[in-house]
Amino acid sequence: MSEPVRVGVVGLGTVGSGVVRLLVQSADHITRQAGRPIVVERAVCRDVGRDRGLPLPADRVSADIRTVSRDPSISVAALLVGGLEPARSMMIDLLEHGKDVVTANKALLAEHGPELFEIARRHGRSIAFEAAVAGGIPIVAAIGECLAANRIESIRGILNGTSNFILSTMEEEGADYADVLHLAQAKGFAEADPSMDVDGTDATQKLAILAHLAFGVWVPWGEIPRTGIEGVDADLMASAAELGYRIRLVAIASRSEGRLAMRVAPALVKIGTPLAETRGAFNAVSIVGDAVGRMFFHGLGAGQMPTASAVVADIIDTVVGRTAITFRTTGVLDPDSPAARIAGADMVQKHFLRVRVDDRPGVLSRITGILGEHGISIASVIQRDPAAADGVPLVIMTHACSTNAVAGAVAHIDASDVVSGATVCLGVLDD
Amino acid sequence: MSEPVRVGVVGLGTVGSGVVRLLVQSADHITRQAGRPIVVERAVCRDVGRDRGLPLPADRVSADIRTVSRDPSISVAALLVGGLEPARSMMIDLLEHGKDVVTANKALLAEHGPELFEIARRHGRSIAFEAAVAGGIPIVAAIGECLAANRIESIRGILNGTSNFILSTMEEEGADYADVLHLAQAKGFAEADPSMDVDGTDATQKLAILAHLAFGVWVPWGEIPRTGIEGVDADLMASAAELGYRIRLVAIASRSEGRLAMRVAPALVKIGTPLAETRGAFNAVSIVGDAVGRMFFHGLGAGQMPTASAVVADIIDTVVGRTAITFRTTGVLDPDSPAARIAGADMVQKHFLRVRVDDRPGVLSRITGILGEHGISIASVIQRDPAAADGVPLVIMTHACSTNAVAGAVAHIDASDVVSGATVCLGVLDD
Repeated sequence: MSEPVRVGVVGLGTVGSGVVRLLVQSADHITRQAGRPIVVERAVCRDVGRDRGLPLPADRVSADIRTVSRDPSISVAALLVGGLEPARSMMIDLLEHGKDVVTANKALLAEHGPELFEIARRHGRSIAFEAAVAGGIPIVAAIGECLAANRIESIRGILNGTSNFILSTMEEEGADYADVLHLAQAKGFAEADPSMDVDGTDATQKLAILAHLAFGVWVPWGEIPRTGIEGVDADLMASAAELGYRIRLVAIASRSEGRLAMRVAPALVKIGTPLAETRGAFNAVSIVGDAVGRMFFHGLGAGQMPTASAVVADIIDTVVGRTAITFRTTGVLDPDSPAARIAGADMVQKHFLRVRVDDRPGVLSRITGILGEHGISIASVIQRDPAAADGVPLVIMTHACSTNAVAGAVAHIDASDVVSGATVCLGVLDD
Repeated sequence: MSEPVRVGVVGLGTVGSGVVRLLVQSADHITRQAGRPIVVERAVCRDVGRDRGLPLPADRVSADIRTVSRDPSISVAALLVGGLEPARSMMIDLLEHGKDVVTANKALLAEHGPELFEIARRHGRSIAFEAAVAGGIPIVAAIGECLAANRIESIRGILNGTSNFILSTMEEEGADYADVLHLAQAKGFAEADPSMDVDGTDATQKLAILAHLAFGVWVPWGEIPRTGIEGVDADLMASAAELGYRIRLVAIASRSEGRLAMRVAPALVKIGTPLAETRGAFNAVSIVGDAVGRMFFHGLGAGQMPTASAVVADIIDTVVGRTAITFRTTGVLDPDSPAARIAGADMVQKHFLRVRVDDRPGVLSRITGILGEHGISIASVIQRDPAAADGVPLVIMTHACSTNAVAGAVAHIDASDVVSGATVCLGVLDD
């Protein structure tokens, strides 16, 4: 048996505590997988005095990152602190002092990825980040290694468990957004401040990372068009269901004719397709490769042990040397990779519109006329019971058309004198 | 740019031709992934004269394996010949002459895996076999690498596309087994002799390989209890549907209290769960790990390009050095891994029974009495219209109970004087 590998765990929140537990509880199994024991040599956290019930002697826990970065016996550090600072400074400190780093911090990579990966390369170190996207689902390895023979055509993902829990619970219980958000907070599926989850930020940062792996271009996450789930209401879900769809927050990146289109937004997904069957806090990713066709992955995208599972798999990969190879060969976040401007959110697909119209003659003809002027043809129309106080909801499903064309038509409709509220427009995914 | 890696492709059938096409068509992309060009230096096939329309000069194709194994410029060989011989001799020849081997031949690995892996180790070579199980789905990497931090609790898979095509088409079209088998043969989803697909052999060989990766024990595939799909009829499917289930050929390996239970058999899978939503020639695998929870993978399990995608990914992994590490560290098919006797097919689960009974008083009480004597409690009973000529079908769903106990009760029932045909007993999977 070889010498143990000594690891530093930076951050003892939910995920960090899970990593310490998993490394200790499954030590025998992990030793077999890595070919040598992996031991937690030191941990770093803000509140050193707090008893977390972890199998870590008190003198191994410190608030100072340097106890890990300056310890020459430590070769790998798991950076499990959220947010941008001090996470960024900590990672740089670790890399500059010769540690390979494993992290679950997607915001950090989405914001500072190119800089951090460049620093890692300069110091001959690696950064592994399977846990940063879709938790326990090995989607980073799938795209970066397993589907390496494929040119990826598209990625669609449910990448945020909190918003998926809210949407699927609203649908199943016929409940309102605000009520379900409170339930999610009570159950621990949503944080006290859930804004990064429900406004699509978290999913967008993950999409930026996946798109880099899949398409080899680095798109700053802030440039990806993004709509959150705050505007989804029970009435919208009922209309979708009537047409055979559910509503999910879907992150999409797709390439056609050399153009890359990306967006994160609520979308209608057809009942019976895998994304529509993704419920609760689960994550799912559907990828189309030119050789492999459509692949689908589903699993727990967050939570203590699923995320710890991905972090420890990355630690094992780093210890045995696979990470160093992948990091070198796939040029992940290589500073030379083109920083792409995306082609915008324009995609050709079916669209779902809910228009609040006044209940008077000629309105339907007016709306459909505007759509026609913008070259949009209509697949079906549902005009529901005009009970709503805020105008009659008119639900329209278009044939496949450009998102930009629909956006133009919606602006035109909303500027007309027959609507009594803003039109909701969602993309529709049939497969 | 480094020197190209020269590859030999042995076998130019469907998969071999796909591999040559993919390596040529996607050469630029694959060069980026591997860090150097990968070129097909030579190919071997039986019928050298046949024009396959491949981008390979005629003088590079031979019927003699030695043109690859003795060519010192070739470092990696893709062995894409089916069956046991000459595939086994070819692989040994390649390994003994210093080639790393990539293969899609699951029968060869299931039958001779330990011997071949030992020869590879002795010669310092590796064998990669992602394509041998579930085609394009990266399940070998998922279990061997991505879920390395987990103790795997169970694997359930739809691992044979032909039988899944037959079952899902029978269900969707209400058609008979024989008719759909002919359709599958006409469409190219089933071979002229489909026996290895429909009798469960193919799925069982794949399960033996997956179970080795997941549980570290080598179970000879012939010892795994196996039932094919030949006995599934439209009436059985209708009864299953009435209870909210579909029928799929499911390969299961599960561990509890240190015992490993394995089997391949048609099973009832609940409508709405991922295995039930796996249709046509698709494959699917559901894995439960102690940390990650339940993961689900879905994709094309066979076909030219999906399989070629997995083969080329393995070639890339071999070229960059990841395969050598995985082969060394995870001890795949290590001769020292315990050759396990499985605990049998005994699993505690719900069971579905269809009993053909005579239409006379007291029969239901007699059958349920026998079940009671064997300690089996009943969840529901459906007695359908006694129109069938071969006795009245009585459909029973049990509560969770041991498969062995149910088998005992079924033997008892079939030996009684109230039945008019053999009882069908299938396991039931609710999640």
